[in-house]
Amino acid sequence: MPQPRKRATIREVAKATGLSPAAVSYALRGLQVSEETIERVRRAAAELGYEADPIARALASGRTGMIGLLCGSLEDLWQQSLAVGVARALKDNDRYALILDAAGDPARESALARQLRDQRVDALIVQPVDPAASLWAELCQSLPVVSIGDSLAGARTAGEVVFDNRTGVTLALEHLRRRGHRRLAVLTSTRASTPDRPADVHVLAEAGRLELDIDVITAPQSPAAATEVARRVLDAGHRAFFCFADSIAYGVYAASAERGLRIPSDVSVMGYDDHPMSGLLTPGLTSVDWDIDGIVRAAVRMVVAAVDGTARRRRIVQAPELRERGSVG
Amino acid sequence: MPQPRKRATIREVAKATGLSPAAVSYALRGLQVSEETIERVRRAAAELGYEADPIARALASGRTGMIGLLCGSLEDLWQQSLAVGVARALKDNDRYALILDAAGDPARESALARQLRDQRVDALIVQPVDPAASLWAELCQSLPVVSIGDSLAGARTAGEVVFDNRTGVTLALEHLRRRGHRRLAVLTSTRASTPDRPADVHVLAEAGRLELDIDVITAPQSPAAATEVARRVLDAGHRAFFCFADSIAYGVYAASAERGLRIPSDVSVMGYDDHPMSGLLTPGLTSVDWDIDGIVRAAVRMVVAAVDGTARRRRIVQAPELRERGSVG
Repeated sequence: MPQPRKRATIREVAKATGLSPAAVSYALRGLQVSEETIERVRRAAAELGYEADPIARALASGRTGMIGLLCGSLEDLWQQSLAVGVARALKDNDRYALILDAAGDPARESALARQLRDQRVDALIVQPVDPAASLWAELCQSLPVVSIGDSLAGARTAGEVVFDNRTGVTLALEHLRRRGHRRLAVLTSTRASTPDRPADVHVLAEAGRLELDIDVITAPQSPAAATEVARRVLDAGHRAFFCFADSIAYGVYAASAERGLRIPSDVSVMGYDDHPMSGLLTPGLTSVDWDIDGIVRAAVRMVVAAVDGTARRRRIVQAPELRERGSVG
Repeated sequence: MPQPRKRATIREVAKATGLSPAAVSYALRGLQVSEETIERVRRAAAELGYEADPIARALASGRTGMIGLLCGSLEDLWQQSLAVGVARALKDNDRYALILDAAGDPARESALARQLRDQRVDALIVQPVDPAASLWAELCQSLPVVSIGDSLAGARTAGEVVFDNRTGVTLALEHLRRRGHRRLAVLTSTRASTPDRPADVHVLAEAGRLELDIDVITAPQSPAAATEVARRVLDAGHRAFFCFADSIAYGVYAASAERGLRIPSDVSVMGYDDHPMSGLLTPGLTSVDWDIDGIVRAAVRMVVAAVDGTARRRRIVQAPELRERGSVG
C-alpha cells in the first residue's frame, strides 16, 4: 500500500504568508480578502504542497468533496461491505464519503437525506429503505442522487444501479425446489412500513408459480438479532430457509448449531447477496451473488460523472448469479 | 421494532405560516427574522409535530445533532461493527453519526478530522490511526473529542476508552505458548508510518519475555486482502498465527483451506477483538474479546455528556478476555 505523503498544514501556509489560519482558509476559498492576498496565499500553498490536499482543492472549487452515502441498514453485513467499498472507491477519486445509517426507518432516511443536502455534500448515493418516498423527486432537483437497489419513484436521478430481484428470487426459489423443498420460511428485513418493496412482491408471485408453501417472516439483519428469530422459526418446525440477506442466514446457522441441527442434512439455508464471509462457513452458504465490486464501480462512476458534469449511462440493471456452496440439502 | 412516526415536514410548516421553507428554517434557528415570526413558526411547528424532529430541535439549539465518527480503517469487520454500534447508540440519544474512514492513513485522518469540525459536528469520536498526531491537541480546543483504543497525545479529550493492549497481547501469546508454539507469525495492520502503536510495542516485549520467535508481518484488514498475505506466510512455513484483528484471521482460514491445511491440526490461529462471526466458523476462532457493547456504551455516554455539558468520568480502560474456541491446536 502507498505510504501517505506528508502534507503542509494550513498553519504552515499561515506562517509563510504572515496571515492567520482563518485568513488563509478564506483566501483559499476566494472569500473576504483581496485578490492580491488570494494570489499570495495560493502561491505559498502551492510551494508548500498544500494544494495537493483534496479538501483544499474542493474548497477552492466551491465543492466540499464530500459525497453522502445513505445506507438502508448498516446492521446488514453486506451493506457494511458495500459502504466500505463505495468509500474506498470515492477515495480513489479524491472524494470523501460521509456514511449514514437510516436504520431501516423511512422517516429517518428522509431526515438524513435532507440533513446531508444542508451539509452541502456534492452528491448523494442512497440504498433506499423507501424508494417510493416523495422526498426523492424534490431532492434530485438540488443534488445529484445515485440510487442502488431500487429506482426512486418519480425522481430524476443522476444514475441508478438496480438489482434484478425478479431473477434473484427465481434463482433462489428454483434451487430450493429442485432439492425437493416445498415448504419454506422466507426471512426478510422488510417491515410493514414499506410493504411493497419489489423483492418481496416477487417472492410471493414466484412461490405461487412454483407451488411453494411459504411463510414470510420479518427478521432483523444483524446476525445476533436474526438468531433469535431463527430459533423461533426452527422451533415452529421449519427446516428450509430463504433469507433475504446473508446476515440473516448467519443467524440460521447459529440457531441451528444451538439446537443441534446440522446444515445441510437437517436444515437447508439459502442466502441473498453473497457476503465475503459466506464462503468461509462450514458448509459454505449457498447465496445469490450481486457482484458487489461491479455495483461499487458503477455507482461511483455515476456519482463522480454527475458532480463533474460529464454525461454517462444512467441506469444499470445488476444481474444475479447463484453461488452454490452446500448449505441446501 | 418500533414503527416510524410520521413527521411534519418543513414545507408543511411553511404552508401553515405562509412563509418560505427557507424562512421557516431560519426562524427555527432564531436567525434573520423578527421575534414575532420566530414565535409564530415555533408555534406552528409544535402544532404540526415538527418539533419532534431531532434535526429541527438541534437546529433550534444551535447544534447540528451530528457526531463525527472517524474510524481508523473500515476494511476491518470489527471496526465496522463498532461504527454501526456507535451509530445505533447515538440514534437512541437522538443524535446522528457521520461515519468516515481514515483508511489507515494518518494524513487522511487529519484531513477528515478537520473537515468534520468545519462541517460543524457537535463532537467527534475517533479510533485513531496516529494517536501521536499534533492535530489532536488543536482539535480538542474547538470540539469535544472522545477517543477509542489509544489515548491522544497531549490532547484534552472529553473522554477516552483505552484498550489494555498489554493484557490482551499477553493473553494471546501465553495461550499460544501453553499449546506448545514457539515460532509465530504475527499479522498486524500497522504500517511503517505509525511504528510506535502501543499494541505492537507490547508484542515485541512479550515475545521476548516468553522466549517466542516471532515474525511481525503487515497485513491488510479485509479478509480477501489478508488471504493473499496468509498464503505467502503459510508457504514460507509458518503454522501458528497471532492476528491483530479477527478480519485478518479470516484470511488465514481462507488460505489454509486453499492449501488443504486443517485448523487446528495443521495450522493454529488466534484472533484479536472477537467479531460476531468468529464463533460461527468451524472451528470457532479463539480470540481476545474487548466487550464491544461496553465500548460503545462508554464512548457514547462520554460524547453525549460532553455535548450536553454534564461532567462524567473521563477515562475507561477496557479489559480483554480470552475466548477459547478451538482454533489453536
